[in-house]
Amino acid sequence: MIIDRLYQEAIEKSPICVGLDSQESYFPQYFSDEKMSIGEKLFLFNKNIIDHTLDLVACYKVQVAYYEALGLEGMEAYSKTLKYIKEVNKISIADIKRGDISATGQMYAKGHFTGDFEADMLTINAYMGEDAVSPYYPYIKESGKGLFILLKTSNSSAKETQDMDCNGKPYYEHMAKLVEKWGDPFLGDCGFSSIGAVVGLTYPKEFEVIQELLPKTFYLVPGYGAQGGKGEDIGRILKKSRCAVINSSRGLITAHKGINEGENCWDEIRRATLRMKEDLEAWL
Amino acid sequence: MIIDRLYQEAIEKSPICVGLDSQESYFPQYFSDEKMSIGEKLFLFNKNIIDHTLDLVACYKVQVAYYEALGLEGMEAYSKTLKYIKEVNKISIADIKRGDISATGQMYAKGHFTGDFEADMLTINAYMGEDAVSPYYPYIKESGKGLFILLKTSNSSAKETQDMDCNGKPYYEHMAKLVEKWGDPFLGDCGFSSIGAVVGLTYPKEFEVIQELLPKTFYLVPGYGAQGGKGEDIGRILKKSRCAVINSSRGLITAHKGINEGENCWDEIRRATLRMKEDLEAWL
Repeated sequence: MIIDRLYQEAIEKSPICVGLDSQESYFPQYFSDEKMSIGEKLFLFNKNIIDHTLDLVACYKVQVAYYEALGLEGMEAYSKTLKYIKEVNKISIADIKRGDISATGQMYAKGHFTGDFEADMLTINAYMGEDAVSPYYPYIKESGKGLFILLKTSNSSAKETQDMDCNGKPYYEHMAKLVEKWGDPFLGDCGFSSIGAVVGLTYPKEFEVIQELLPKTFYLVPGYGAQGGKGEDIGRILKKSRCAVINSSRGLITAHKGINEGENCWDEIRRATLRMKEDLEAWL
Repeated sequence: MIIDRLYQEAIEKSPICVGLDSQESYFPQYFSDEKMSIGEKLFLFNKNIIDHTLDLVACYKVQVAYYEALGLEGMEAYSKTLKYIKEVNKISIADIKRGDISATGQMYAKGHFTGDFEADMLTINAYMGEDAVSPYYPYIKESGKGLFILLKTSNSSAKETQDMDCNGKPYYEHMAKLVEKWGDPFLGDCGFSSIGAVVGLTYPKEFEVIQELLPKTFYLVPGYGAQGGKGEDIGRILKKSRCAVINSSRGLITAHKGINEGENCWDEIRRATLRMKEDLEAWL
C-alpha cells in the first residue's frame, strides 16, 4: 500500500510535501543566460529542487495547472518531473483535482496512473460521488497507487459550497463520511487508507473535528506558510496521530528569490526546507 | 458574448453538440493500414467527424480525459483538434471539469483559454466556490470565452453528493442559485449568460425544476442516446426556451462501427447526426 510508504517517509524524513507549483517568475536569475526552452528550464528548476531536498521531505506534489498553462511544452516538463521523482525513489502526488465518471473516469485513471503522466497519488474531486472515485480502485489495489479526495479547502468562497448547512452539519462533514467509507477497503498496515483527503489548515478547529470523525484517513494539508498555516496548529494535529503530510509551495521554492539567484541558489531552498522541518518538529 | 454565438448556432444548425470522446477502439477498420501514430490517427478521426457534421451541429465538446490517457501524444492530438475546430469557425467546448483557486485557477484559465489548448468554453467544477470560477472572468469579459459549471449529473452515485438534503432542498439547488448569481454579469443579447451549467438528462423532472429556477442559464446537456436521454424529454425543455445544447458522443462517433469501416465510413456518422437532428426537431 502506497500509504504505508508515505506514512514511513513522513516519519523518517519529515511531514513536508514540497509543492512544485513551478513557473518562469520563480526561476533564478542565472537561468536567463541558459540557452534552453522554458519547458527545459521548468524541468531543470524542479530537478534541482528535488536534488537539494529529497533527504528532508516525505514527497513532492506537482500542481498540473502550472504545466497546462504552458501547453505541450509544459506537459512535457510535467512528465519529466514525475519520471524524475520516481527515478530518485520519492513519492509523487499529482495535484490534478480531476473528477469524472465511468469511461471518462477510467481514462483519467489510465492517464495519471500509467504512461507519460504516471504519478503515485492523485488529488480527486468527488462532486459526482463514488462514480468519480471507483475508476481508480483497480490501480490502488493492484498497482500500489493512492488518492486524496478534496474535502475542505482553505479559500474563503469554499464557505458557499463546502460549508453549506445540510441539516445542522456542514456539507463537508457528509462528504467526509463518504471519504472514510470509500477508503475502508484500502487500509494499510499503518492504519490509514490509501484513499486520503485534502483538508486545508486555515481553520485548525474544523480540522480537528474532521480528524476525530475520520480516524483512518490520511491528509494532504495545503496552507502552510504563504497560505497562513502555522507549525503550532500542525503540531497539535500530528501529536494525536501522524496522519498528514503538509504542503508548502511558494514558501520553499521561491526562498532564493531576491536573496541568491546564482548557481548555488538551491542551497537557499534547502535551508527554507530545513527551517520548515525544524518548525514542524518543534511541536511534535 | 460567446453565448450569443452558441445560441444562434443552436437555432440555425441544431442543438447538437458532438462529443469527441475519441479513442482507438472507435477508429474505422481502414485506419489499421495507415502508417501513422495513434496521436495522428486520433486527430484524423476527429477531423473527419468535424468535416462531415459541421453544417448540422452547434458545437463540439472535446473530453480531455481521452487525450490525457494517451500522454503527450494524446495532448498533441487534443491541441490539434481544438485548433481545427477554430479553423472551421465552429465553437469548441473543452470538457475539462477543472476546479482550483487563486494562482492555480489563473493557470488553468491561461492554459485552456490561450495557447496550445485554447477552447471557446470550458466545463468547470465549483466545489471550491466562486474562487474556482472567478479566475475565468477576465477571459469571459475580454476574450469572448464562456463556462459551463457542473451542476447536476446523471450518474447514479451523484445522489450521494449532489442530492444531499440541505434543509429540505437538494444540494444542487443551492449550487444552482450560485451559478445564476455568478453568471449574472455576463448576460448576452440572447438573454442567457456566458456562464452556463452542465445538467444531465436522466431525470427530466429535475431538469425542469432547475430550468424554472435558473431562467438565464444556458445548459450543456449530456445524456442523449447512449446514456438514456430521449428526444421527447429534450423537446419539452427546448419548447419552453432554446436554453441548451445536447451532447451525444458514442451515439454519433461510433455509428460506423460494424456497419461501414471503409474510407466512406464518415457518411455513417453524418447519417447518425442527421437522425439525431430530426429526432430533436420532431419535438420542437
